[in-house]
Amino acid sequence: MKSVLKLIDRIANRVNISLADLEFEARPIIYNMTKPNKFLKFYAFYGVTDHHPLYFHFSNSSLAGSYFFGKCRVDNSVLYKSDIRGDELKEKGDRFHFHGIDFMIEHDESIHIKDSYLNKTLVHSSSHDPEYPELFLIKNTAASPYSNIHGSPCRGVYMGHFSTADFTVIHDCILDRFAYVQSGTLSHKHIEPGRIWVKSGDDFDFSYNFPTEVIDKYISFEPGHKPEGIFMDFITEKRKAFQRIFDVIHIKPHENVPSGTAISRYSVIRGKCHFEDNVLVAQRAYLENAWLGKGANAQENCFIVKSRLEGYNVTAHGAKIIYTQLGKNVFVGFNSFLRGKFDTFVEGKLACPLVIGESSIVMPHTIIDLEEPVTIPPKHLVWGYITNKRDLKKHSIPLEKLADISDGISLGAMKFSGSGKLFVDTFKNRITKILEQNGAHFKDKKLKGHAQKGRNISYNIIQPYSKGPRKGLYPTMDISV
Amino acid sequence: MKSVLKLIDRIANRVNISLADLEFEARPIIYNMTKPNKFLKFYAFYGVTDHHPLYFHFSNSSLAGSYFFGKCRVDNSVLYKSDIRGDELKEKGDRFHFHGIDFMIEHDESIHIKDSYLNKTLVHSSSHDPEYPELFLIKNTAASPYSNIHGSPCRGVYMGHFSTADFTVIHDCILDRFAYVQSGTLSHKHIEPGRIWVKSGDDFDFSYNFPTEVIDKYISFEPGHKPEGIFMDFITEKRKAFQRIFDVIHIKPHENVPSGTAISRYSVIRGKCHFEDNVLVAQRAYLENAWLGKGANAQENCFIVKSRLEGYNVTAHGAKIIYTQLGKNVFVGFNSFLRGKFDTFVEGKLACPLVIGESSIVMPHTIIDLEEPVTIPPKHLVWGYITNKRDLKKHSIPLEKLADISDGISLGAMKFSGSGKLFVDTFKNRITKILEQNGAHFKDKKLKGHAQKGRNISYNIIQPYSKGPRKGLYPTMDISV
Repeated sequence: MKSVLKLIDRIANRVNISLADLEFEARPIIYNMTKPNKFLKFYAFYGVTDHHPLYFHFSNSSLAGSYFFGKCRVDNSVLYKSDIRGDELKEKGDRFHFHGIDFMIEHDESIHIKDSYLNKTLVHSSSHDPEYPELFLIKNTAASPYSNIHGSPCRGVYMGHFSTADFTVIHDCILDRFAYVQSGTLSHKHIEPGRIWVKSGDDFDFSYNFPTEVIDKYISFEPGHKPEGIFMDFITEKRKAFQRIFDVIHIKPHENVPSGTAISRYSVIRGKCHFEDNVLVAQRAYLENAWLGKGANAQENCFIVKSRLEGYNVTAHGAKIIYTQLGKNVFVGFNSFLRGKFDTFVEGKLACPLVIGESSIVMPHTIIDLEEPVTIPPKHLVWGYITNKRDLKKHSIPLEKLADISDGISLGAMKFSGSGKLFVDTFKNRITKILEQNGAHFKDKKLKGHAQKGRNISYNIIQPYSKGPRKGLYPTMDISV
Repeated sequence: MKSVLKLIDRIANRVNISLADLEFEARPIIYNMTKPNKFLKFYAFYGVTDHHPLYFHFSNSSLAGSYFFGKCRVDNSVLYKSDIRGDELKEKGDRFHFHGIDFMIEHDESIHIKDSYLNKTLVHSSSHDPEYPELFLIKNTAASPYSNIHGSPCRGVYMGHFSTADFTVIHDCILDRFAYVQSGTLSHKHIEPGRIWVKSGDDFDFSYNFPTEVIDKYISFEPGHKPEGIFMDFITEKRKAFQRIFDVIHIKPHENVPSGTAISRYSVIRGKCHFEDNVLVAQRAYLENAWLGKGANAQENCFIVKSRLEGYNVTAHGAKIIYTQLGKNVFVGFNSFLRGKFDTFVEGKLACPLVIGESSIVMPHTIIDLEEPVTIPPKHLVWGYITNKRDLKKHSIPLEKLADISDGISLGAMKFSGSGKLFVDTFKNRITKILEQNGAHFKDKKLKGHAQKGRNISYNIIQPYSKGPRKGLYPTMDISV
């Protein structure tokens, strides 16, 4: 274990140097993330398919339980149960657009994780750094469990629990727990817990801050201690179900799955689940008594429990949907927590469902945790913290109304400035693109996406040295076509 | 599958060119060895440990079901359920002795398999080629199931079913089924089926030919058809037991195993088995109601069924021991088939055991398949085909008597010339070395061998492309410390 401990120390040093002006101390956080004996307990694995350029390089790293797909390079890093998906990286010859400038991608992009510690972190999409479009670099970065690094190159970043960096180039920043940023660039800032911030240059700026007591109730964390709260309780309860799928080489495929639908062999499917065509269920997704309509997707780390999704739904990474009915085209953003209740009596009736109408958009990091039945009408934007009908009024707006706004609006803790139309259009375009990428519209062998391309992945299992000074480290590997 | 089929064709061409003067045609043999869909069915895997130099390189090859350990390089080859063990390769700085000349090994040796097709073949030990001691090369070679390439570099070789090349440098030769050679070098020869040949320069020459009808009964083969006979029937019956151990990631370790003993998680242990200390059970060994005394070993592809081994026994690769009692220090050579019977009535008694006395040597490729009880006295050499007491007389000799022979002796179909003493001493030295290498004498953390070093192997699983033109081929890989 000597080499692994030395490596962890090296990473802590580098993160500390990067975050010195924010007075960040990585050690009590990194040292408590994982018990060293866990580094031996879970194998790492990578996917091989002829649909994507294949290149993996691993050196001087510990990779326990992590999954790699697409082109990835990991040096001097500790990854634990992370999910590094490079299947949306740019390829040589692709076009890249930035502020009216259009240029060509010189060589296949790759994800490069260096001098970093990622714990149960998702790394996904492709670099949104116009200066380095061929390199999705994560360096001197420590990321806590259930954080998402989505299309966001990170240099010198601490990601708190359940935080998300989305399409943002981040340099020397702290994203505290459950914070969400999508702001183009971010430098030398501490984004406080539960801040939701979507900014696109001078076009628009959406901002919301969760009340501190709500954040603490759902996810609280003190360096040197374990994270606590409703999010952790919920995940801990379901975690055991994953053990079996990692213990066996071949899993019996789920029956009655339409030909355009893909259900990862590393997902958990329990109870009575139903899948229409062109559905994508990603690895580490958890489904229990779930009904997924045509073109719906369930992305990594999401949970869909006793819920019905009518079709063309996006359930983004880490979203949790419980006792909920979603109309067609409803989008549920990263790490959202939507929980109706069927197990409590409300006004004499055993029901407290959450119903979300067609084409509504649930902002990333939204918590809807009901104490009474709530129905969100179609074509609404919702955000923040909602437990009842009264909350809903202060945390939702019809998309049409929002699109009419040209200067600004405040509603509860939400502040919006800029063009509502650009905001709504940007969101809608993104949802359209996600559905396309996932293969929701696949027909007659055309419009293939992840659901269709992901049906023939071979999984390769790698393990660390189990004894000696290199215990816990993985051998150096180069894997290519 | 296009690339794999092209690759097979390339290999067949190269083997044919090498064996042109022996009028060998590889295609009907290679094409019938494996059904292409099987290339996808079984994962390949390699071992990682800090006890051995680590280097693997795989390119343009299909490796289904194969295992790799130590330094191995595979290019343009098809390996199917083969076992390539480089844990006895020479290391930089080792001394190599040949005909009184002593020199130093320049760099770590590696196994290099090129343009070859190996099917259920074992490759083991280290190169015995004094010209290239740092390279264990297998090139333009086609090897049939259950053949052993033991310390024998092969260029242009066809290995028949259950044949063994032992410590021999082979160039453009056919080793027909169940043939065994240990002759230093061999060039442009066709070794007929069932020929057992041990030759050491001018020192000694041991030779025995099985009767054709015996070989046909135990292993018959026509190019273009499946191999048949008692060997195949026996293995086919047991084969299914291996499925489970390859299907799961973690196997519950066998209980009550002494600290110096290693039982591979890729072995099958059935019924009531007992293990004393310093026992080695290698991968793909099959044990059923077996009692293994201190320092005994069960090597790859061996079967020990309802038998007792008193201790310090060597059960070489592919040996089968059924209803047999072995005294201490008994050596059973490659692919031997020893079968007593407990299920037939002999003179009113339900017993027909095979008993082999202490320190006896069963030559490689010996068949003892009893129709009446037979006891082989201690310190005897046995060979050939034995079914009853009468056969034994013509197929055994006391080691002491053999050591006294200085010119020659014939006994039945066996011919021996040269020094009996050198022959016996060479054999005894080799048995001593095997026991040492396997860790039979391990005590107080000293005299470690495979049994002790093999306790902490991490297994890494690799799989081929499952679709597209490269279907069945493995990605290119470089793996090092």
